Amino acid sequence: MAGPVLAIVGATGAVGTTMIEIIDARGSVPWGEIRLIASARSAGKVLKVRGEDVTVQALAPEVFDGVDIALFDVPDEISAEWAPIAASRGAVAVDNSGAFRMDPEVPLVVPEVNAEAAANRPKGIIANPNCTTLSMMAAMGALHREFGLEALVVASYQAASGAGQPGIDRLQAELSAVAGKDLGSRSGDVAAAVADLGDDSPFPAPLALNVVPWAGSLKDDGWSSEELKVRNESRKILGIPDLRVSATCVRVPVITTHALAVHATFSRDVTVEAAHKVLAAQPTIVLEDDPGAGVWPTPAAVVGQDPTHVGRVRQALDFPNTLELFVCGDNLRKGAALNTYEIAETIADQV
Amino acid sequence: MAGPVLAIVGATGAVGTTMIEIIDARGSVPWGEIRLIASARSAGKVLKVRGEDVTVQALAPEVFDGVDIALFDVPDEISAEWAPIAASRGAVAVDNSGAFRMDPEVPLVVPEVNAEAAANRPKGIIANPNCTTLSMMAAMGALHREFGLEALVVASYQAASGAGQPGIDRLQAELSAVAGKDLGSRSGDVAAAVADLGDDSPFPAPLALNVVPWAGSLKDDGWSSEELKVRNESRKILGIPDLRVSATCVRVPVITTHALAVHATFSRDVTVEAAHKVLAAQPTIVLEDDPGAGVWPTPAAVVGQDPTHVGRVRQALDFPNTLELFVCGDNLRKGAALNTYEIAETIADQV
Repeated sequence: MAGPVLAIVGATGAVGTTMIEIIDARGSVPWGEIRLIASARSAGKVLKVRGEDVTVQALAPEVFDGVDIALFDVPDEISAEWAPIAASRGAVAVDNSGAFRMDPEVPLVVPEVNAEAAANRPKGIIANPNCTTLSMMAAMGALHREFGLEALVVASYQAASGAGQPGIDRLQAELSAVAGKDLGSRSGDVAAAVADLGDDSPFPAPLALNVVPWAGSLKDDGWSSEELKVRNESRKILGIPDLRVSATCVRVPVITTHALAVHATFSRDVTVEAAHKVLAAQPTIVLEDDPGAGVWPTPAAVVGQDPTHVGRVRQALDFPNTLELFVCGDNLRKGAALNTYEIAETIADQV
Repeated sequence: MAGPVLAIVGATGAVGTTMIEIIDARGSVPWGEIRLIASARSAGKVLKVRGEDVTVQALAPEVFDGVDIALFDVPDEISAEWAPIAASRGAVAVDNSGAFRMDPEVPLVVPEVNAEAAANRPKGIIANPNCTTLSMMAAMGALHREFGLEALVVASYQAASGAGQPGIDRLQAELSAVAGKDLGSRSGDVAAAVADLGDDSPFPAPLALNVVPWAGSLKDDGWSSEELKVRNESRKILGIPDLRVSATCVRVPVITTHALAVHATFSRDVTVEAAHKVLAAQPTIVLEDDPGAGVWPTPAAVVGQDPTHVGRVRQALDFPNTLELFVCGDNLRKGAALNTYEIAETIADQV
C-alpha cells in the first residue's frame, strides 16, 4: 500500500477504539499500512480496520520499524518510555498522555489553533492536549484571534469516560445499583446503594446521582493536576504565556462528552453578535445558541460528533469585554482520538 | 398552646414536607398551633406534625385569621396573590417564591448574613432567596465581612429537586429508563431511552446521563431567570449594590443538593489559611477541605444536612485577592425550607 505507515499504540482502549472508528468513517485516508499495538495482554486480538482484520501486536521496539507516525494513547509512564523509542526508530510519536505536553521541545497542537507548531518537533514527539483543555480550544482559539484573550475562569462538567473504559463501566454499574431504588427526595443513600460494587472505582466518590469536584492528582496549594493542565496547556496552545486562568474541574455522571462553563475576558470590545459571527465561521464549531427555542448544547446530544458545540453566549453584565459560554465536546473524539488523529493528518505529508 | 401560630402554605410539596421534617426534628419550637394549607386538591389530607394529626386546609382568606407567621412555598403567581392577603389578615408572610424578592419594600433574608433586615417589613412580607443563591450565601456573607467581596463568577451544578417533586420523579424515571441499557461509550442514546416517558418533563432536555445548561425562563440578552436571580439576590442580601456577578446555571442529574463552583474576588488580601479560619468559625458552615485525604463536599454526602459545606478552597494563581471554592448545600433545606423556617424563628419574638 502507498502512503505513510500509521501505528496506534493503545489500540484496544476507549480512545484507541475511537481512533479506529474515525479511520473507518473517513472516506479516504492517506495511510498505507495501519499497525495496531497494545500491551502484551491484548496482543493477538484481531480487530477490523477499514474492513480488514488486523492482529494487535505487543509493544516492543521493533514494532515501530517502518512506522511513519505512531499515535499513543497509553498511561503517562508508558508514553514517557516508549514515545522516544518510537521516535528513535524513525516514527513521529503523537502522544495523548501528559508525559510531554509541557516539554518546551515538544509542540502541543490543536490543528485549527496552532497547526504550524507541529512542524517544529526536535524530539520527534508531538503532544495532544488534555481532553478538558481541548474541549474549549477550538472556540477559544477562534475568539482569541479576533478579540485577544486575556483571562479564563472555567468550571468543568467532565464525563466518566475521561477515566477511560473503567470509568464508563463504573458509572454504568453505579447507575444500575441506584436506579429504581426509592431514594425519596434524598440522594444521600447513593453511597450505600453502590457499596456492593466495592472500592475499585476510578473515581474518588460515588458518581451516580452525584458530582465529584476532583479529577487527577493533588498538586501544590490544593490544586488538582487536571485544573493546572487547563491553565498551562491553554497558555501553550494559544501562545499566551501570561494568560490568566482559574479552573475548577468536576466529574459529573455523564458517560461521554465534557462540558465547560467559560468566563472569557478579552483585550478588545466583544459583543454576542460579533462572537456568534466568529464562532459560526469555524468549520470545527457548531453554534447552538437560541435559548428561547431551547437551543443550547448538552453532552448527551453532542456525543459521537466531531465538532465542538458552543451555546449560551452572553455578554457579562458586570465585567468589561467578557463573554460567558457553554461548550460541549466529545472527550473521546475531539478531546482525545480525533485531535490526535488530526495532528497525524496535519503532518502526513511531512513524514 | 402558647406561642405564635405558624402556617405552612404549600404544605404537601417537596419544600413543605421538608418544613414539617425540620419542625419535627427540632427538640423544642416556639410555635403554638401549626396550620397546614395547600391547594383545594390537597385539602383534607391528614399529615403528622410533631406527632399529631393535622388536616390540610384549602387556601382561603380566612385560614390566615389568627396566624402570626405564614411560610409560603407555592408558585410565584399564587404567592403574589396570597402573601398580601395573609399580611392583610395580620400574619407576616415569609415567602419562598420569586414574587417579592426584588421588591424594595420586602427584605430578602438569610439570617446568618442579614437577620437585621427582617425587622423592616413594611408590607408584612419577607422573602426567602432562590435556592441557588442561598447555597453560597452563608459562605459569601462570612467571607465578605472579613475580606470585602467585589465580584463573583459562579457555575452551578443544580439538583433535580430544584424543580420540586416533579423534578425528582422525572429524574428517577429517566434513570430507570437508561440503567442497564448498553449505551457503550455513548450517552447519545439517552434521548431515545427516555422517549417513552413522554415530553411531560420539568426539564427542557433529558437529565439522566446529561447536564442541561438551562434553569428558569428566558430574560434579556440570553440570560436565564435563574442566572439573574443569583446576581440580583446576592447583591441585595449582601448589601453590595454594585457587586459584579456572572453566573451560569446548569442542571445536573443529582436528586437533591446544589453545588456551586465559585470564583470570588475581594477588595482585601485573602489567603486560603485566612479563609479557612473564617469559614471554620461559622456555625452554619462545615469546612471540608483536605483534598490529599479525599476530603471535599459532594451533593450525595451533604444531602439532608442543614449546614453549607465548603471545600476546594484555592487561591487563584493569576487573579489578585481571589479565591476558588466549591460549595454544596441541600436545596430543599438551607436552600428553601430551612432558611424560610429560620427567618420565622428570627422574627418569632416580634410577632
